[in-house]
Amino acid sequence: VIDGALLAIDEDPEMHVLLVGPPEVAESALTSRNRAGALDVVAATQLIDMTEDPARAVRAKRDATVRVAARLVRDGTADAVVSVGSTGAALAAAVFTLGTVPGMSRAPLAVVIPAARGPVVLLDAGASVDCDADLLTQFALAGVTYAGVVLGIEHPRVGLLTVGAEPGKGDMVRKAAYDGIAAALDGVAAEFVGNVEGHDVPLGGRADVVVTDGFTGNVLLKAVEGTLAMVGEAVAADAADDERLSAAFQRAMAPLDPAAIGGAVLLGVAGVVVVGHGSSSPRAVASCIQLATRSVRDDLVPQTAARLAGFIAQRGTAAGQPARFER
Amino acid sequence: VIDGALLAIDEDPEMHVLLVGPPEVAESALTSRNRAGALDVVAATQLIDMTEDPARAVRAKRDATVRVAARLVRDGTADAVVSVGSTGAALAAAVFTLGTVPGMSRAPLAVVIPAARGPVVLLDAGASVDCDADLLTQFALAGVTYAGVVLGIEHPRVGLLTVGAEPGKGDMVRKAAYDGIAAALDGVAAEFVGNVEGHDVPLGGRADVVVTDGFTGNVLLKAVEGTLAMVGEAVAADAADDERLSAAFQRAMAPLDPAAIGGAVLLGVAGVVVVGHGSSSPRAVASCIQLATRSVRDDLVPQTAARLAGFIAQRGTAAGQPARFER
Repeated sequence: VIDGALLAIDEDPEMHVLLVGPPEVAESALTSRNRAGALDVVAATQLIDMTEDPARAVRAKRDATVRVAARLVRDGTADAVVSVGSTGAALAAAVFTLGTVPGMSRAPLAVVIPAARGPVVLLDAGASVDCDADLLTQFALAGVTYAGVVLGIEHPRVGLLTVGAEPGKGDMVRKAAYDGIAAALDGVAAEFVGNVEGHDVPLGGRADVVVTDGFTGNVLLKAVEGTLAMVGEAVAADAADDERLSAAFQRAMAPLDPAAIGGAVLLGVAGVVVVGHGSSSPRAVASCIQLATRSVRDDLVPQTAARLAGFIAQRGTAAGQPARFER
Repeated sequence: VIDGALLAIDEDPEMHVLLVGPPEVAESALTSRNRAGALDVVAATQLIDMTEDPARAVRAKRDATVRVAARLVRDGTADAVVSVGSTGAALAAAVFTLGTVPGMSRAPLAVVIPAARGPVVLLDAGASVDCDADLLTQFALAGVTYAGVVLGIEHPRVGLLTVGAEPGKGDMVRKAAYDGIAAALDGVAAEFVGNVEGHDVPLGGRADVVVTDGFTGNVLLKAVEGTLAMVGEAVAADAADDERLSAAFQRAMAPLDPAAIGGAVLLGVAGVVVVGHGSSSPRAVASCIQLATRSVRDDLVPQTAARLAGFIAQRGTAAGQPARFER
């Protein structure tokens, strides 16, 4: 984390990074790198373990790093939180301390996959593992705002991730969500392209926004990672001495490299919160920090809130449509 | 399909393939290949479309190809069914015409991924998209029998696919299934290794059997396929002229090639039923036929039934354990 933060400020001197955690650990790590004083340190003494129940741990530990970091954003001291710890704890701290914006009852994690045939916003990448059709519809609208604000795609194509391209394919949640998403996107600057499949995420091209629950999104992303790792191991075993081969392989995989993906943004919370991979390299941590910076500079939170408010207003006036996305 | 069937009989002259479908289509395709009479043809005049509700279509269409094929197995004329049509229709026809074996209320699709660190039986790969904890427990036991019969792994490690390795990670279905699977595997020749993640399927090594619902399994497999296609496209664009590079990639990706995977077996039905990819090449169709042949020669159905009966008997005698897997 510290190497990543140093990389980020070296690449963008206008960026200011606060380290949140035990000061003695931070100071000694900075000193051992001859960078004492390069980063400000905010003390936080508690940590939340991967094995703890995140919501309970966040409530119980007022001085946990993610809660302290979220308070810095709430109080205006910081513009964004970056965490490579427990996703559940980051989600719980964000919702608990910052709250959600009107129109969102939960905060999905959005990642941008820079796929060869065009970038894909995948959400939820792992925040809400149990989703109903209404939540998936909220996620679809949040994804539309994100594609507009971050990728500049003002009329994104939205797909529902399921097991076949034909309408009617899917489990009960997907079948129920299909009509809800179609109705919610009617009149919004977006196109519902219907069902998309697992291969449409790494390949891109079919949809700019792919909507799914956090369970499926997480399994999908890890399957993509595992496949790349599998191919990488085989290439390394086969031709470790061939530089051209290694370079070509690096280029081929680059779009799906975690550092290129650069972390996930929690959409719909009232502050910028970026969650990175638990096993992030310094390069990947720096990418997460850069993603947070871009999100702040793009006015992600006010833009998301304003666009969602517009959708809610539109839905509120549609005959017989309850404005069910109000908080 | 016809090219795949011809490939299969050319490679294994002891194999006998019956083509089920419109005879005039089959005859003309065989004649145009100068192979008239090489394959026997069984007439079936109805087909089930990808857009139809499979269960309803199978009940309504007595002369649909999958129903005719399933009857050939039920009546002893054929030993196995191979279909590269609608998975749902193959499942419905199999359950409707052949029935399930005691202990199984549904038939999961099992695929063997020949991963670098060891083969992985993934089930369900797409048959039952809505699963509860009891079904996942049935699938775990079916996966144990399959690993024993087909891979010769008599004490397989079984993992539950979810969003994190730590116990307690997952959605409500996974949290409920965890204890059910642990209890069901207690006393059986298998080891429950707990939670596994998306990358453990393409990489292998953590579990010999990975249990999931058909929705997640289908999305995962297609994500793996899409990732390979993405890498393949990038390599082709980057170094189409480099034969060594192309060959190295072919070798690296071979374990996850659909032809290497060779289709999926419907476990727990009273007959061998293999389902292949809708966009199968002749090579992949031949692999499906070879998988069906191996399954018949391995006595998959009687072995599965006998092993499940053993599990049920064990559970029936365990104090306080209802034999809830009896049909």
